[in-house]
Amino acid sequence: MLRLSPPNFKRFTQARSFDVIYGGGEANVAVSLANFGLPVEFITRLPNNDLGLACIQYLRQYGVNTEKIIMGGERIGIYFLEVGASARASKVIYDRDNSAIATATPDMFDWEQNFEGVSWFHWTGITPAISQNLADICLDALQVAKSKNITISCDLNYRSKLWKYGKKPIDIMPKLVSFCDIAIGNEEDAEKVLGIKAPAIDVTSGKIDSSKYETVVKEISQKYPNLKYIAITLRGSLSASHNTWSGILYDKKRTYFAPHYDIAYIIDRVGGGDSFAAGLIYGLQNFENTPQKALNFAVASSCLKHTIFGDFNLVSVDEVLKIMKGDLSGRVSR
Amino acid sequence: MLRLSPPNFKRFTQARSFDVIYGGGEANVAVSLANFGLPVEFITRLPNNDLGLACIQYLRQYGVNTEKIIMGGERIGIYFLEVGASARASKVIYDRDNSAIATATPDMFDWEQNFEGVSWFHWTGITPAISQNLADICLDALQVAKSKNITISCDLNYRSKLWKYGKKPIDIMPKLVSFCDIAIGNEEDAEKVLGIKAPAIDVTSGKIDSSKYETVVKEISQKYPNLKYIAITLRGSLSASHNTWSGILYDKKRTYFAPHYDIAYIIDRVGGGDSFAAGLIYGLQNFENTPQKALNFAVASSCLKHTIFGDFNLVSVDEVLKIMKGDLSGRVSR
Amino acid sequence: MLRLSPPNFKRFTQARSFDVIYGGGEANVAVSLANFGLPVEFITRLPNNDLGLACIQYLRQYGVNTEKIIMGGERIGIYFLEVGASARASKVIYDRDNSAIATATPDMFDWEQNFEGVSWFHWTGITPAISQNLADICLDALQVAKSKNITISCDLNYRSKLWKYGKKPIDIMPKLVSFCDIAIGNEEDAEKVLGIKAPAIDVTSGKIDSSKYETVVKEISQKYPNLKYIAITLRGSLSASHNTWSGILYDKKRTYFAPHYDIAYIIDRVGGGDSFAAGLIYGLQNFENTPQKALNFAVASSCLKHTIFGDFNLVSVDEVLKIMKGDLSGRVSR
Amino acid sequence: MLRLSPPNFKRFTQARSFDVIYGGGEANVAVSLANFGLPVEFITRLPNNDLGLACIQYLRQYGVNTEKIIMGGERIGIYFLEVGASARASKVIYDRDNSAIATATPDMFDWEQNFEGVSWFHWTGITPAISQNLADICLDALQVAKSKNITISCDLNYRSKLWKYGKKPIDIMPKLVSFCDIAIGNEEDAEKVLGIKAPAIDVTSGKIDSSKYETVVKEISQKYPNLKYIAITLRGSLSASHNTWSGILYDKKRTYFAPHYDIAYIIDRVGGGDSFAAGLIYGLQNFENTPQKALNFAVASSCLKHTIFGDFNLVSVDEVLKIMKGDLSGRVSR
Amino acid sequence: MLRLSPPNFKRFTQARSFDVIYGGGEANVAVSLANFGLPVEFITRLPNNDLGLACIQYLRQYGVNTEKIIMGGERIGIYFLEVGASARASKVIYDRDNSAIATATPDMFDWEQNFEGVSWFHWTGITPAISQNLADICLDALQVAKSKNITISCDLNYRSKLWKYGKKPIDIMPKLVSFCDIAIGNEEDAEKVLGIKAPAIDVTSGKIDSSKYETVVKEISQKYPNLKYIAITLRGSLSASHNTWSGILYDKKRTYFAPHYDIAYIIDRVGGGDSFAAGLIYGLQNFENTPQKALNFAVASSCLKHTIFGDFNLVSVDEVLKIMKGDLSGRVSR
Amino acid sequence: MLRLSPPNFKRFTQARSFDVIYGGGEANVAVSLANFGLPVEFITRLPNNDLGLACIQYLRQYGVNTEKIIMGGERIGIYFLEVGASARASKVIYDRDNSAIATATPDMFDWEQNFEGVSWFHWTGITPAISQNLADICLDALQVAKSKNITISCDLNYRSKLWKYGKKPIDIMPKLVSFCDIAIGNEEDAEKVLGIKAPAIDVTSGKIDSSKYETVVKEISQKYPNLKYIAITLRGSLSASHNTWSGILYDKKRTYFAPHYDIAYIIDRVGGGDSFAAGLIYGLQNFENTPQKALNFAVASSCLKHTIFGDFNLVSVDEVLKIMKGDLSGRVSR
Repeated sequence: MLRLSPPNFKRFTQARSFDVIYGGGEANVAVSLANFGLPVEFITRLPNNDLGLACIQYLRQYGVNTEKIIMGGERIGIYFLEVGASARASKVIYDRDNSAIATATPDMFDWEQNFEGVSWFHWTGITPAISQNLADICLDALQVAKSKNITISCDLNYRSKLWKYGKKPIDIMPKLVSFCDIAIGNEEDAEKVLGIKAPAIDVTSGKIDSSKYETVVKEISQKYPNLKYIAITLRGSLSASHNTWSGILYDKKRTYFAPHYDIAYIIDRVGGGDSFAAGLIYGLQNFENTPQKALNFAVASSCLKHTIFGDFNLVSVDEVLKIMKGDLSGRVSR
Repeated sequence: MLRLSPPNFKRFTQARSFDVIYGGGEANVAVSLANFGLPVEFITRLPNNDLGLACIQYLRQYGVNTEKIIMGGERIGIYFLEVGASARASKVIYDRDNSAIATATPDMFDWEQNFEGVSWFHWTGITPAISQNLADICLDALQVAKSKNITISCDLNYRSKLWKYGKKPIDIMPKLVSFCDIAIGNEEDAEKVLGIKAPAIDVTSGKIDSSKYETVVKEISQKYPNLKYIAITLRGSLSASHNTWSGILYDKKRTYFAPHYDIAYIIDRVGGGDSFAAGLIYGLQNFENTPQKALNFAVASSCLKHTIFGDFNLVSVDEVLKIMKGDLSGRVSR
Repeated sequence: MLRLSPPNFKRFTQARSFDVIYGGGEANVAVSLANFGLPVEFITRLPNNDLGLACIQYLRQYGVNTEKIIMGGERIGIYFLEVGASARASKVIYDRDNSAIATATPDMFDWEQNFEGVSWFHWTGITPAISQNLADICLDALQVAKSKNITISCDLNYRSKLWKYGKKPIDIMPKLVSFCDIAIGNEEDAEKVLGIKAPAIDVTSGKIDSSKYETVVKEISQKYPNLKYIAITLRGSLSASHNTWSGILYDKKRTYFAPHYDIAYIIDRVGGGDSFAAGLIYGLQNFENTPQKALNFAVASSCLKHTIFGDFNLVSVDEVLKIMKGDLSGRVSR
Repeated sequence: MLRLSPPNFKRFTQARSFDVIYGGGEANVAVSLANFGLPVEFITRLPNNDLGLACIQYLRQYGVNTEKIIMGGERIGIYFLEVGASARASKVIYDRDNSAIATATPDMFDWEQNFEGVSWFHWTGITPAISQNLADICLDALQVAKSKNITISCDLNYRSKLWKYGKKPIDIMPKLVSFCDIAIGNEEDAEKVLGIKAPAIDVTSGKIDSSKYETVVKEISQKYPNLKYIAITLRGSLSASHNTWSGILYDKKRTYFAPHYDIAYIIDRVGGGDSFAAGLIYGLQNFENTPQKALNFAVASSCLKHTIFGDFNLVSVDEVLKIMKGDLSGRVSR
Repeated sequence: MLRLSPPNFKRFTQARSFDVIYGGGEANVAVSLANFGLPVEFITRLPNNDLGLACIQYLRQYGVNTEKIIMGGERIGIYFLEVGASARASKVIYDRDNSAIATATPDMFDWEQNFEGVSWFHWTGITPAISQNLADICLDALQVAKSKNITISCDLNYRSKLWKYGKKPIDIMPKLVSFCDIAIGNEEDAEKVLGIKAPAIDVTSGKIDSSKYETVVKEISQKYPNLKYIAITLRGSLSASHNTWSGILYDKKRTYFAPHYDIAYIIDRVGGGDSFAAGLIYGLQNFENTPQKALNFAVASSCLKHTIFGDFNLVSVDEVLKIMKGDLSGRVSR
Repeated sequence: MLRLSPPNFKRFTQARSFDVIYGGGEANVAVSLANFGLPVEFITRLPNNDLGLACIQYLRQYGVNTEKIIMGGERIGIYFLEVGASARASKVIYDRDNSAIATATPDMFDWEQNFEGVSWFHWTGITPAISQNLADICLDALQVAKSKNITISCDLNYRSKLWKYGKKPIDIMPKLVSFCDIAIGNEEDAEKVLGIKAPAIDVTSGKIDSSKYETVVKEISQKYPNLKYIAITLRGSLSASHNTWSGILYDKKRTYFAPHYDIAYIIDRVGGGDSFAAGLIYGLQNFENTPQKALNFAVASSCLKHTIFGDFNLVSVDEVLKIMKGDLSGRVSR
């Protein structure tokens, strides 16, 4: 997607220019993983015009393989982002109807071929929210992935402004999630996507009680025994400029709790959840028998994301490890 | 429409920001006339979100009355403009499908009320190119305008990338033009919109022979005897940075020829035709018995447009008159 | 007034560009009310040049009616603003002597005509501070407004750098305030403008004790029994980047106290008081029998102002209501 | 003076930022000479605030000695510049009334001390145009300079928008010019300032016939036998973007004619005349017995000025000499 | 190399920001070919820091394979570019000593492996100009390439400011050129690099007589019978803003002459020669038996380069073909 | 040095422009002192090109005398600065090898002449870290300064990335420090430069216990009895955006403790230590018998530095005194 945002905290009506980047849930995960040094392929559909090309180039610079992206369709999806500050919330205007990906049909994707040599598949709940075709495409992909013993991770990613084609997440997502090995969500996703109500918590207080979510992950685990790992991100929203951030991870044996980070000056919070997903995928692959470390890597990684302009988490593994070791001092090394 | 363009002659793929303005054929004419001091109302349909609001505010600052704009629909139409230079042509990517205006229906417009107290109605060939509904809305408006003895002007404005709903201009425009008092076009419009072929002329030579168009206006006049004035704009395209500009006007008695202007360094050529239309409307209203002066005002006005960033021709009557008097020296007054 | 400010927290001596906006006490109130959807007219005097025109266009875009603005005089008033951060205070250099409004004379304003169809008149203590003529013009306006039963509100707005024509506020303001129905001020205004000393309070502590101001409003009320409402804004200044904000309202029966807001990252604090005034005017008109709600609306509204670049409070009624309901989390809705 | 100009050829009404520089006739000459490596002092009066300080720093960076600048007064003079293009002329709005220099009085300047160790004094016709006091200050300075055998040069610099204090140039300038050794002007100055009418010439044609000005310089020479050198700059104005540039010099023996330069893409033409003056001063000092070379240096120098943003001619002697040798190819040296 | 250039035609001493791109002779050719859709690998050495990474990402976005780039060394080479206008030439300050590539040694490059599956090798005369090691590395590469029957093209690219290690081009280049199939140069290269003096031609006249270079290519051909094609680019330098551009090609049978292009407003001329080389390589590969078409493609391609910001020629094959067909009108297609 | 930094908190790999300033340890002190109104000369070596000239102009604008700067050498030293935020630390890439100053030799500096009329000499530990020659130059300067009874201050300024020529700070610095009257450092410098280990303190806690450093300054005092004053700066690093700041001063009789400042939103922390040094030098000169006041001035001065973009502390004495009086409220004066 093309993201257009007024610079310097300006409102939409004040803007005489928009900052231009390209991003979106799955793309953000792909770039983050490529930054961590993993080989990554990203599959989507983009229009065969200069904006589609610009999007491909934008992804490619970070090392994401874009060769399997399908060119076609009428337009690139757009979202307009007004960046908030203090008490003023960020605002998003979606303009993604009839985008190249929204009008994709199952026959465009050859999953047998796409998954050749692939060991991990990540998708998010945004895709099946767009159209029945995309829900079907997801199902196709998941079935093929499963058949090839590919590890599957899913970010539930509930978006209330999507799901306009007559289905609700609860109609679609449970089946798709049943193919997955790892599920990631926040307190809202569990309820809206899987129908599992989280305990009432004041997310605006800045003090999210991680322990209250333990029942949620256990309930999810019971309903979806296929899930080897269930992770919940915990965002405390003190203001648009000041958040806290943490997460928990459940591996069917025990629940792991991450440290809470205080992010007192946020540069860009979009892509925070995606950077958590990427961090977790990296962590589960690289710190295999230490779920605590994988979780901590995911949380530290997304803590850093909040300091980086754009959707993408442009940090290296070393930078994340430094945060994990507790150095948030921001001291210049020289 | 929202116009997004990379700054400083950058290509789409290089842009990390887009300049943001709002504009479009009829809006450009409206703003130009408001700058000339005339009371102007602009009617369109815009989405009820911050981008629709921004567009309204953008028009309103120049004094255009926006109270009759209808709020509704899904999205604002967008066009992406890559500004060319020298041998590299400007590029336009339209993204206007399903815009608020494209999905408008005839019942949304009450022309009896809209035309209360109105003496002049201007429309362009872009509108009926978008959908059958809009072609019908144009017809409605023209019938009501005619019944109220409102003067009607039309810019034929052929756009090859529109007209996608199954009709050709030749199927729709002749009937609509038959309601008009004034028609404006360029050498291509006459052929594509009205089916009247202009003589072959090398527009890239920089030397457009005005006299060759006399037969065109006469032929149009024979086919459309309702037209009191027929104007043709004449653009010589030496490069994306260097154009010549002129025009002719026919009033059923004689043909008037304007001076040729050499515009050796173009700031923004979009809206050039619209500024001609606005200049002509102003001229025909204010220099009534001197068509030559009206034409010269139109050509001088649009010559100035090429020096102004954006779609709108932000010049005053005095500034146009100074050009008409032959002062193109650009000398600073101090 | 034209406001010129170095971008990105730069000092005046570092600036190679200035951000350009137009604003000023009464204009800020006008735009805020227009944003709330009220019909607003703004009266001032501006020079008949491109900067005067730019100022008019700037106001007009937000829906303020500018038709009664008088064109004439030598120059537009200017103020230079250096935006501070943390311990470094913002700095203002006024350059408004001999501005079009400063050289205005009483005969230029026909208040009988200006007030036709008007139900509310707002003015501020900045105007009579500029010249004896402007003090006289204020008196003229107030007398006519009173005779027409127009509701009159006043922001006392003490500015130490003005009042240079030989009079002190205490010589002029009491008489003008005696025409008003609503008076608004901060802790300094009461003393400097009306001669009513507020209790000593450490405004730099970040903890302003609202209750200490109850005696102030009561004393004002006794001296000015014409005032139906008296409001005091309460700003705690922890640093140039971090303020607290609240206010109280007295309606001759009881004192209402608003919540205290913590604004930990300020985008632009100029116009904070004006946005309070506009919020109060809107609130008193729309939540007529609930002064508490009117006050809360005013405080929430100006809390949001601090997050918006420029002098103007570009927020909608809905956005203010959301803050009043306590949602300062800045969560993105999507 | 503070110069404020919309960036990128925008009109005043479009600008949301102004480029900020400091400059003005005599300052421009001072900086140009400092760039040529000469020791230069600049005398003026500036307000004792951050804008006065910024102006001093701006001059000081280029090596101009600012120690004799007098601090005081109310405000810094401002001029707003809208940069034109092609047929659209640049526009200037002066806002210099009551500037620190405009309110200066003769007693503020101790010319005996100011001229200690000075060998050359340059002034322009802008200064005595501002106020009677400044005309008197000029006279004071000239009398002292003369008494000390300092070489005196003057740029006649007629500005129609100044001269508002009741005197015409012809009332003031002839006496002041009678103290000078060198006078510089353009075709308009001779007539407006000295009352010597130049032959009618079409400056918009791009072809200025230098020879027609020979009679002008001779007539000036007869009236002002004190003048050792009289120079006329010749600007052909094809458009705001395209000028030709040349000049002539008369040394009471013969007239020297410079080459004509074609400046087809102008970056900034403000300060063009000042850069000529600086070039001539440098040339007369350094190529003493070759007036032709001095003139050619002046013309080449100001030809380069048109390619440099701002009022100042930031070029070195070597760069000018390269142009004089005829290399206008713009080839990169690498 | 990192290229740093003041924006908007500013001089180095005026700049408070530099535009940042990455480029350099061979990289420019690589990107251009990747834009034409060819698979391209680029080999160099870059420092293992964020600037080296940024350079890799910059190349990778355009589809150039960067996997064989060697990481190491102290610093990235830098060149500072001041963009000229009209009579003011662009200026380059090289700061490339001790760059990662300048300190490379022959053992770092395994040419056998690098050339696996490669069919074409392009290098330029800049590389052996930097150090004896790099001259040796070039020789190594050429020997291996030759042994593998890889087609070899060379841009002679004389840079007077390089060649500082004690050798002259004439000491090094003839041997290296003797391995090549195609040689490209301009009028200066032939003399400085190969010792073949071109006829005296006034390159600043804007009228380069192509025919005069026929003797040059023939002389080169006699000296270097290995060369299947010899191409000369012909730049006429009317000013820094206005060039003409053409070229000739000799295939040992006849000389082909390209059309002359007039580039009246140049956006960025750096990389012009490289875009010619890329165009020729593409043309010789794709229009194999029509050297005239290959030459025309090269010249049209580099004509377009002059309209694009940065070192890279970001154009598609279709865009070049359109220019070749003679459409330089810059007309917007819509 | 030339400092290049991505704007708006962008990462190096995201930057398409760099902000350009010039600065460096000793230059920062010089500019700060010049801002305080003291006459200051700065000595270094800069390349004789436009970047060297730009650096000189940059210093000169602030009133630093640059006449003794030596021109020569190959290049200007560069450092690239990525500005951090919250948990993401700022990053510095030094590119200063072979800079003009790094290749300076002792014979280039005539200290007898340089120190004529000088009463205070300040140097930092950065200089002898660069090369043996520079260590020798420092020693030369110190010996001459001592012989002339010039007061000598030194900022120990340990930089781990320098000291690459085979010596460690402990090999060089003790001898140099033995010439000094005042030494300034932070907790790390004492250990790395002088070999005096400070107590373990958690600098990331935000709560630096000043008293723990009393033993450090006493130990330094015993080792270096020549030092009349020893100062330690105390930075608490809560995050890259949020620091605390204080310092202590020892005058061989007692230890003085400064207030602790909380800097919750940092604009630019580079040059913080240098601004402390400048503040202390000013304070010791102007508040001679009140070391407490000198220390407080130094700490308040550097507290303000954190709010100013760039390396330089562009504040006046009055602004520092206001902070010292405890007004950190950031209230606008108007």
